[in-house]
Amino acid sequence: MQDLHGYYLEDLSVGMSASYAKTISESDVYLFAGISGDNNPVHINEQYAANTSFGKRIVHGMFSAALISTVAGTRLPGPGAIYIDQQITFRAPVYIGDTVNASLTITGIDERRGRVQTQTDVHVGDRIVATGNATFRVSKRPS
Amino acid sequence: MQDLHGYYLEDLSVGMSASYAKTISESDVYLFAGISGDNNPVHINEQYAANTSFGKRIVHGMFSAALISTVAGTRLPGPGAIYIDQQITFRAPVYIGDTVNASLTITGIDERRGRVQTQTDVHVGDRIVATGNATFRVSKRPS
Amino acid sequence: MQDLHGYYLEDLSVGMSASYAKTISESDVYLFAGISGDNNPVHINEQYAANTSFGKRIVHGMFSAALISTVAGTRLPGPGAIYIDQQITFRAPVYIGDTVNASLTITGIDERRGRVQTQTDVHVGDRIVATGNATFRVSKRPS
Amino acid sequence: MQDLHGYYLEDLSVGMSASYAKTISESDVYLFAGISGDNNPVHINEQYAANTSFGKRIVHGMFSAALISTVAGTRLPGPGAIYIDQQITFRAPVYIGDTVNASLTITGIDERRGRVQTQTDVHVGDRIVATGNATFRVSKRPS
Repeated sequence: MQDLHGYYLEDLSVGMSASYAKTISESDVYLFAGISGDNNPVHINEQYAANTSFGKRIVHGMFSAALISTVAGTRLPGPGAIYIDQQITFRAPVYIGDTVNASLTITGIDERRGRVQTQTDVHVGDRIVATGNATFRVSKRPS
Repeated sequence: MQDLHGYYLEDLSVGMSASYAKTISESDVYLFAGISGDNNPVHINEQYAANTSFGKRIVHGMFSAALISTVAGTRLPGPGAIYIDQQITFRAPVYIGDTVNASLTITGIDERRGRVQTQTDVHVGDRIVATGNATFRVSKRPS
Repeated sequence: MQDLHGYYLEDLSVGMSASYAKTISESDVYLFAGISGDNNPVHINEQYAANTSFGKRIVHGMFSAALISTVAGTRLPGPGAIYIDQQITFRAPVYIGDTVNASLTITGIDERRGRVQTQTDVHVGDRIVATGNATFRVSKRPS
Repeated sequence: MQDLHGYYLEDLSVGMSASYAKTISESDVYLFAGISGDNNPVHINEQYAANTSFGKRIVHGMFSAALISTVAGTRLPGPGAIYIDQQITFRAPVYIGDTVNASLTITGIDERRGRVQTQTDVHVGDRIVATGNATFRVSKRPS
């Protein structure tokens, strides 16, 4: 089971960073709509979306948040970390076909409480599409 | 196209509320893992999860956030609203099979900037599993 | 139940052949990544793939193997056959949008042990993308 | 792009190992059937499967092979490795709900040709359900 655990608190330091990137497909957006029930026409109705300021269907904002969760849950801090909170501000639309890169950087560590503060950014190319921060609880290495 | 638009700013008032509820299935969690890439074993490995403090596989925290997005994107404020930001604090785990209820209540309206502040809560039965707040931009009714 | 059984050992002879063909969609590849967890960026990150020797996203090699399994499990030998082993060599990349044809040809039958040897090839047009062989256990017709 | 590359040839040595584990859900099996077309009733027809020697629906053998591909494509050797061939022998059935662990261990390295030989095993608990070997082409670190 050891190998399924991510970083322990002692392994982490401010400045450590990880990311996850994916080209968001139409099927991703449709499955996200399907499992969440967020059938806002701006995501699944091309005719409707064409008449909005976006001009075409956009990806759910929470999909960007989900990719942050992917970094946290699989890379840094990785399995074993407990998600405490997430703040996210959406800056720009993400379109179907965009390659989205979610990154997480450690900005603070509270050793006593076992809390790790992070900066979480989501880019499409050089453009920031979402930015925010998240806190995780990470346990110490079993002694 | 009129019928595909949600509330306009003039239609909204503090205290208005809406919700969306769903029993989260194993396939929901597996598809969420699949499209996000968040294959944290606590979500998709029952043996691993049994050895954590959760005792069994849990639903991705961001799934709860996605259900808030569902309320916002389909009910209140509904289509046409632009997601500005979301803050969410995770309080308790959600398990596969739980019926999750996401609710959104308007707590403030900034008429001049077209911003709507909301309280966003996610319950399983009487238990709060996530809580936070979100801001949306909502346009005025076309004159 | 009779109609759900494929060929019995007595029905088979060397040289018999069957195939299954499908145009592989982006959603096929994304679902394969989702259920397998194989999020290698060469499959789901168009920017990354563009910088590899492939030039664009490729289909998982095991998808070709899965199509061989489709021939075996549904056509020849069909339901009731037990997959014993598969050897597969990947010769060329398969791209999203390619129409892939998997074929299986019987090359040997071991009546005593109930084993059927087969040649398994996967083509895109005239190009072999994967080749190999597989063994199945097939039972005799119930007397 | 550097961070999206897995191990280079110089980083690898005989004995290195990695694994990926997942509880196989009913939806995994149904999606695998859906995208591959392998609708063998032993996978998707509980009544049929109950009358076979398996007693209930089993997971596609190629799903086990896909999990090996997951290890190879995401962990060891990781992104950048080219799948050359895979041999797999199926030893025992995998049932829906089983937690499957696919592991890959390096058994040989051909520095001159850039080939890496591996042993690939799939377990459910202590039971080997599939075993075999695979070859990958891995490039040297760019100088």
